[in-house]
Amino acid sequence: MEKFKIKFYPAGKAIEVPKDANLLSSAISAGVYINASCGGDGVCGKCRVIVRKGKVNTQPTGMISSEEMNKNIYLACLTTVQSDLEVEVPRESTIGLEGLTPEDIHSRFKGFYSASEKIDSSLSELAKRKFVFKPQVIKKYLELEEPTITNPSSDLERLTKHLRSIPDFYPDKKGPIIPSGLVNIRQLSGLLRSSGWKITVVIGEKDDTWELLFVEPGDTAIKNYGFCFDIGTTTISGQLVDLNSEKILGTKITYNKQVVFGSDVITRIIYAGKKEGLEKLHLAVIDCIDQIIKELCQEHNISINDVTCITCAGNTTMIHLLLCIDPTFIRKEPYVATSNFMPAIRASEVGIRINHRGYLNCIPGVSSYVGGDITAGVLACGLNLLEKPSLLIDIGTNGEIVLGNREFLISCSASAGPAFEGSGLKCGMRASRGAIQKVGISKDGIVSFETIDSDAPRGICGSGYIDAIAQMLKAGLLDKDGKIKDAKYERVRNSEFGKEFVLVFKEDSGIKKDIVITEVDIDNIKRSKAAIYSAAETLLKHVDLSFDQISRIFIAGGFGTNINIESAIRIGLLPDLETKKFIFVGNTSLAGARYAIFSREARDEAGEIARKMAYFELSVDPKYMDEYMAALFFPHTDLNKFPSAKD
Amino acid sequence: MEKFKIKFYPAGKAIEVPKDANLLSSAISAGVYINASCGGDGVCGKCRVIVRKGKVNTQPTGMISSEEMNKNIYLACLTTVQSDLEVEVPRESTIGLEGLTPEDIHSRFKGFYSASEKIDSSLSELAKRKFVFKPQVIKKYLELEEPTITNPSSDLERLTKHLRSIPDFYPDKKGPIIPSGLVNIRQLSGLLRSSGWKITVVIGEKDDTWELLFVEPGDTAIKNYGFCFDIGTTTISGQLVDLNSEKILGTKITYNKQVVFGSDVITRIIYAGKKEGLEKLHLAVIDCIDQIIKELCQEHNISINDVTCITCAGNTTMIHLLLCIDPTFIRKEPYVATSNFMPAIRASEVGIRINHRGYLNCIPGVSSYVGGDITAGVLACGLNLLEKPSLLIDIGTNGEIVLGNREFLISCSASAGPAFEGSGLKCGMRASRGAIQKVGISKDGIVSFETIDSDAPRGICGSGYIDAIAQMLKAGLLDKDGKIKDAKYERVRNSEFGKEFVLVFKEDSGIKKDIVITEVDIDNIKRSKAAIYSAAETLLKHVDLSFDQISRIFIAGGFGTNINIESAIRIGLLPDLETKKFIFVGNTSLAGARYAIFSREARDEAGEIARKMAYFELSVDPKYMDEYMAALFFPHTDLNKFPSAKD
Repeated sequence: MEKFKIKFYPAGKAIEVPKDANLLSSAISAGVYINASCGGDGVCGKCRVIVRKGKVNTQPTGMISSEEMNKNIYLACLTTVQSDLEVEVPRESTIGLEGLTPEDIHSRFKGFYSASEKIDSSLSELAKRKFVFKPQVIKKYLELEEPTITNPSSDLERLTKHLRSIPDFYPDKKGPIIPSGLVNIRQLSGLLRSSGWKITVVIGEKDDTWELLFVEPGDTAIKNYGFCFDIGTTTISGQLVDLNSEKILGTKITYNKQVVFGSDVITRIIYAGKKEGLEKLHLAVIDCIDQIIKELCQEHNISINDVTCITCAGNTTMIHLLLCIDPTFIRKEPYVATSNFMPAIRASEVGIRINHRGYLNCIPGVSSYVGGDITAGVLACGLNLLEKPSLLIDIGTNGEIVLGNREFLISCSASAGPAFEGSGLKCGMRASRGAIQKVGISKDGIVSFETIDSDAPRGICGSGYIDAIAQMLKAGLLDKDGKIKDAKYERVRNSEFGKEFVLVFKEDSGIKKDIVITEVDIDNIKRSKAAIYSAAETLLKHVDLSFDQISRIFIAGGFGTNINIESAIRIGLLPDLETKKFIFVGNTSLAGARYAIFSREARDEAGEIARKMAYFELSVDPKYMDEYMAALFFPHTDLNKFPSAKD
Repeated sequence: MEKFKIKFYPAGKAIEVPKDANLLSSAISAGVYINASCGGDGVCGKCRVIVRKGKVNTQPTGMISSEEMNKNIYLACLTTVQSDLEVEVPRESTIGLEGLTPEDIHSRFKGFYSASEKIDSSLSELAKRKFVFKPQVIKKYLELEEPTITNPSSDLERLTKHLRSIPDFYPDKKGPIIPSGLVNIRQLSGLLRSSGWKITVVIGEKDDTWELLFVEPGDTAIKNYGFCFDIGTTTISGQLVDLNSEKILGTKITYNKQVVFGSDVITRIIYAGKKEGLEKLHLAVIDCIDQIIKELCQEHNISINDVTCITCAGNTTMIHLLLCIDPTFIRKEPYVATSNFMPAIRASEVGIRINHRGYLNCIPGVSSYVGGDITAGVLACGLNLLEKPSLLIDIGTNGEIVLGNREFLISCSASAGPAFEGSGLKCGMRASRGAIQKVGISKDGIVSFETIDSDAPRGICGSGYIDAIAQMLKAGLLDKDGKIKDAKYERVRNSEFGKEFVLVFKEDSGIKKDIVITEVDIDNIKRSKAAIYSAAETLLKHVDLSFDQISRIFIAGGFGTNINIESAIRIGLLPDLETKKFIFVGNTSLAGARYAIFSREARDEAGEIARKMAYFELSVDPKYMDEYMAALFFPHTDLNKFPSAKD
């Protein structure tokens, strides 16, 4: 078959592909991360590339103007390779991974995880408790008695008996041997004798049974490490923990490499149904996990063989993809997962490189759209222990809401869409370098803004849109319906998609184009915020409660650490309550996973939470649509609900 | 490297090997089974071959006379290949597998297993009980309710809930899902939908937990089969059973292919310590098991995918080799096994071809020299339930003895050596085709004999030696010390190894040589019978009992079905009790394995027996040596112990 070379700029990465290869797939294979929110269906128009040299075939699309076509701009997903190519990937088409060191990514997410590292003290204080330390894997140094002719019991029985003789030690079963893999048994006799009967046993809990994970010569008990992960649709956070000291040794965050296959769970599920799609998505997430493990282990001079356990929290689709389980039916009515409770498996079964016998656990979920990340969130906030009803709102790529206290838990998932992550918006982008995250508009119309990393502005992220819209409302530039008012103001102008507001003129922009907010964008944000607000309200009404009876609102998710509460209330995303009732809790998914890796009690409680939590399917409740329609205003149809916005 | 072709006759098998390859190993690789009792150490002298054509190097050995060397007779184990060869394997050097159809082997062992098939009724009558039928793997056809928007629980939770709703069904754990392999979970959603929610689930018990073994579309519940095996040092017996109906569908016996690496457990343990030795022994037994499974499945038109469970009983060394566990320390003081209790594993882990998720269980053993075959024997006889003390004597390649009743169980292993299997005796052979198994000597010295399969005599098996010696004693040809008396009798003559008795002259023999019993042979048998008798007596004395307090003596093992009780008493192998106290119970190892595959109760009881049974190490008891010395006469020093022999 004819093969062609493609070189991608500015990354400088090259690859050889057969004739007719898809250009987006080729880029992915080359490790060039091109934005493709829609998963390569030619719909989102994000994967624009410039073909500098060479021949391609492309399908016609309304996303590319004829002017752009003349400049050899194509949608990579609709384009096939017909010769050797040189391809330029413009900055706005990348997902922001190129040229970034792990430290860059780390610093970008600083707020994200520092909150999560601090959450312990603040949250456990809130929940007034601390879980009993009992990790899932323990190491124990033993000096066995050597066998004699009068005490010739077998090696494994000798070992088991010794383990059982240790007071307060875990294995509680009464059998003559501890369950154990054949590989351990095969090595046991030689290992015991070559080590002079001085060994370290590694014991783990699986399916409610303690088993012998492995045995090492000498005393290695001090080296016992785990990882907890939050597997988000957009980002993956991992934390290296010491399973002896209960300490966090380090945290890393990276983009979920699956984003190149689609930006939300729905496009990923569709992608999973394509040929080799599931495997690609699976390998992408495993690759991210392996990378975080490798880097953190190197930084802390830890061998991956001493990593014995991983606990993951993620939404139901992410967990399916992590384990390479077909997620198809999550998307199809009646929205059924293969399982919300996944059995503990060995991490090596899905190709994760830690100790070959080490575990991979997933925090159980509630339903197809309320996953283990939410269970972990409830666990981390201690929502299930509070006396008074409280809310947990987790705004990630989707929006999940839990209402409850120690007596009940009810959850729902709002189809908020990915607008708060910048998807589907003309200049929208994820909260990464160069994203406008804070906006001020003075009474005389002067715009000020702040970008992530103070870099030249590339686009607007969720918190930027919230601020911008709140400020536009305040400045009288926007009516409550979300229409931009006519104004003799250079920043307001007409375009083919209705009116737009220029936040940054191209002269000041990092992408040499105006950064604008269109009425279509505002409508998008309006629908997203309405979905979340009305979901919370519907959930409350369903149990005959109202917002003023709520004692706390936990705001979780990476998104949550940056938004301005007043702006969020002003646009009607959050209810109009005293700001002190809102508590930013950061990445509770990661915190909950960490609780679980450290404590049997927390693991059991996660299971109880998942079993106890009811799932409320909004789409079958006719009242939800009414609430939603009423919320399609800034801040709301019923201004009595937002007294602070009356002025 | 230079390669040479070897052709073996009469088998007609050929192989290509490098220069300097060992001739015995080459034969094994070619599938030619040459006798090598000593495991290829040049000691037993059994592996004689005639090099018809070609060049070899050989080591000097006293086992080959200069006359034989002139005829190009060599010990294969001491000989290396130096050119293309044509090698003849004389009949007496084979282990009797060549040219035999499975039916031949089957018919040879007829007595062996027919007893085992009949044992059920007679033994369960003796033990006055029947185990509750509860196989380790069950299949169940289910019609699940399809999920709806108001009942959208996940696939695995739906399945688990349905299973739990079936009255009297096994899975008793309360968790939200049944433990299950990732492979099943990955297939579940597609399988449920393509089968219209009509499926057969296969549930198995492992480590005290029920797990989902696999799921099949439609109703396949009727197809659920298992195999039980007795893994003997010399022979392997396998039985195909129906796990629904509790029926035996068929039985096959084959030689343990490990015999080419040594005839007893000690030589095999030594062989396992050689390079690749363990792997070769392991593969040899797996090969035998696979062969029996394949043949029985073909005969009964059963797919190996419908075989879900295997239960094996065998001595401790055999079980180690089955699982590829180094048996080295079984042989070295203080004689320690890696484990007597082996965890249930998947048969595929050791390469046995049944359903990929099917189990392999081993009946637990007691010590390095009292294995799971003896536990199974006690289970099968119900020795552990009897009111009055009884004995189980299992004479295989070694001799194990259990004494006990419902209150106690004590066992020992007598180093009887493999004499009763024909090993180490000049004309000794296993109980296979052409073996002399019954001998009569009339008062006027006329010898009559009977061979297995009525074939031309090739040698003498254990029961033949017992008969022959008893008859020689009766005929006054032998003194009580085992010396052949001088007699003017053509059958008694001197040889370089002392006197010998000609049982068959070469004119009537199938090997064109005289078949003789030498004084050395008689001494060998004497030591073997003394070891067993004195072991039983020592065990009795240890608990202050004597033979006349014993209500039953169960004689187990392939050996047991053929021996003449009176002859065995006459030579002092068995105690001088009424013959009705002796019960031939056949292959109790296989019967016990079958009980276990059919019944949870039996599996639990096997574990209890193994835990409860004490092991008595004869070698550390000074009294044993006294008893042994006293038993080194025919029948015994103390004739009062053998009143029936006084005449």
